[in-house]
Amino acid sequence: MPYLVEPIGFINATRKSPEDDYWGEEVAEISLAESIDASALAGLEAFSHIEVLFVFDQVPETRIVTGARHPRNNEAWPKVGIFAQRAKNRPNRIGSTICRLLSVQGSKVIVRELDAIDGTPVLDIKPVIREFLPREATTQPDWATELMSDYWSKRS
Amino acid sequence: MPYLVEPIGFINATRKSPEDDYWGEEVAEISLAESIDASALAGLEAFSHIEVLFVFDQVPETRIVTGARHPRNNEAWPKVGIFAQRAKNRPNRIGSTICRLLSVQGSKVIVRELDAIDGTPVLDIKPVIREFLPREATTQPDWATELMSDYWSKRS
Repeated sequence: MPYLVEPIGFINATRKSPEDDYWGEEVAEISLAESIDASALAGLEAFSHIEVLFVFDQVPETRIVTGARHPRNNEAWPKVGIFAQRAKNRPNRIGSTICRLLSVQGSKVIVRELDAIDGTPVLDIKPVIREFLPREATTQPDWATELMSDYWSKRS
Repeated sequence: MPYLVEPIGFINATRKSPEDDYWGEEVAEISLAESIDASALAGLEAFSHIEVLFVFDQVPETRIVTGARHPRNNEAWPKVGIFAQRAKNRPNRIGSTICRLLSVQGSKVIVRELDAIDGTPVLDIKPVIREFLPREATTQPDWATELMSDYWSKRS
């Protein structure tokens, strides 16, 4: 029982190809698709952060992992299931990132630290509401903390 | 340019129909679809929280809002765009919720406070990694805080 989803917008970004790290302070723009009225963004600026759902459309279907793998193919890290990591070659190829909302300009949304490349199709934009963030302290394995060590660093 | 997405699992929950509030302490189970190997969940238990992407499949396409509306049709709250709220009748009908991971049992994931009804198709499961949560304080409008006031309350 598959579902059809359609881009509600597209990302304009400086990066043209996938890279693992150094997304710190990158600025990107989401332009709404023609099928969506700019009024869909009314009131969004009252939120400091938004959650963007997008498609990793450059991942060929043949590269999708449905079992386990080493994150970033790094054997120093445990082989874990695709649903225990946020890698892009996952079933349905959907990415989800919380980023800082800078401004809304007509049918464009300007954001900081959205880790997606130029041309990426967007499926949804949601406001970050505090009550939907974890309501208890979070814990995570060491490999995940190591993997993220330079993710939000600024490119030097 | 539409994309086909397919359920990677389904939710077993006590609620059979949509309700706005009182999701506190509800327990639900995600059962992987037959197309997905249980190894896709390997290592997930090292995380305290997961992010679940799902389809609001009970929303008829004719009810989808592409512009602005009052949240919960409550005129006391401002008319805001569908992308400035987390309502279910949104383009692509995708929900995204961070919930507490209780356990993984074979191809089943047991969670607390997943706000989706019984039978809901799941598109993705991602581990919550601290570095992907907001890295600055968040701000939100008063209406959003009011709307959430009983969302995670326990049903009495």
